[in-house]
Order: sequence, then structure tokens, then C-alpha cells
Amino acid sequence: MADMDFDEILTGAQGELRRGTLVPACLLLLRRPGYGYALIAELHELGFNVDANTLYPLLRRLEGQGMLASEWNTEESRPRKFYRTSPDGERLAAELLADWTRIDRSIRSIEMGDPT
Amino acid sequence: MADMDFDEILTGAQGELRRGTLVPACLLLLRRPGYGYALIAELHELGFNVDANTLYPLLRRLEGQGMLASEWNTEESRPRKFYRTSPDGERLAAELLADWTRIDRSIRSIEMGDPT
Repeated sequence: MADMDFDEILTGAQGELRRGTLVPACLLLLRRPGYGYALIAELHELGFNVDANTLYPLLRRLEGQGMLASEWNTEESRPRKFYRTSPDGERLAAELLADWTRIDRSIRSIEMGDPT
Repeated sequence: MADMDFDEILTGAQGELRRGTLVPACLLLLRRPGYGYALIAELHELGFNVDANTLYPLLRRLEGQGMLASEWNTEESRPRKFYRTSPDGERLAAELLADWTRIDRSIRSIEMGDPT
């Protein structure tokens, strides 16, 4: 198998792995209210190379589901919307973190060759 | 927000979180060759409640990508296909695990409220 094929397969699988972890990452980060573009910068620093085309619809979806609350900051010359995690969003983040911990434990046990 | 809505949102987010972890889980488990249905049982024990309609297409996809090799076992009355992880599949699993560890570290650092 050519290395380019492998790289494509890897990129796809990595994307799938990261996608599911983006929701808990955003909910945890937005316990401190933040603007979309600042959140993108924070996520990049953490190794989530997400762009605005992916993140902004996700933020709007989480807001529509009541997991994020938003407000407009009109103190500056250009009004900006900032988001913060709602109480339901905190609860969702906690549940997903518990799940993540369980999955991590499973993956580690398989990795060690002792799947039971 | 009604609890039923919350449960639906949680189920969706959990599904997204687990989906991306299924590939490394399968590649690690199939270092020991196995049949599809036995793999489903192993995954269930590990907390991945995946069904045949999800797993079988995934196994065929990974086989098509050269990440799994398969053979027919014709020793029993009914021939059965069993899968095992290929050398490329081992490499993919190792890369995804490295990624996994990085994401885990990021998520933990955000959880602790120290995202930098």
C-alpha cells in the first residue's frame, strides 16, 4: 500500500476520532465565556485544528439545544456574540467526560492485550 | 429543558464520541484473529454497544483499506470469515493511540480549568 493511501486513511480516522471530542472540549472551555474566534485559537493550541466552518455551526447547534447560552457584547465598536456553557451544558460535559474515561480505560486494557 | 430532550442530545453526543474510537478498538482487538460476531461480544463487554449493522460495514471498509486481512475458516460445517489486523492496521492503530493520548491530555487540562 502506497504511503499516500495510508496518510489519507489516517487523516480520515483521526478526523473521526477528534470530531466526537470537540463537543466536550467546547463545553469545558466555554465555562469561561468566549467569542468564536478566540475559542478557535484556544482549540488550536490544544491540538484541535478546527476551522470556523466547522466550529460556528457546532456552536449554533449547541446553543439551539440549550447547551450554550449567548449574549451580544455591544461595548466595543463592533458588536460580538459570546457564548458560555449553560447548566444543561455543564451536565452534558460531565456525562461525556465520564464516558470518555470509560472508553479510555477500555482502550488501555485492550492495548495491554488484556481485553477482559 | 425537558429531560427527554436532554437524553436525546446526550445520546447523539455519546454516539459521536464513541464512533471515532471504534476503529482503534477493532484494530487492537483483532491483533488476535476473530469473527465478526465474537468481536461484537468483546466490544459489548468493553462498553461499545455496537450492532452488526454498524460493525460489519466498518470491518469491510477496514479490509478494503488494507488495515485488516481476512481468511475463511472452512474447518467447521459452516464457513466463517475471520479478520486480523494487518501490519498497516497496526501502524494505523499506533498513530490513532498517539492521537488519543494527546486529546486525552488536552481534555484533562481543560477539565482542570487550565487550558494553556
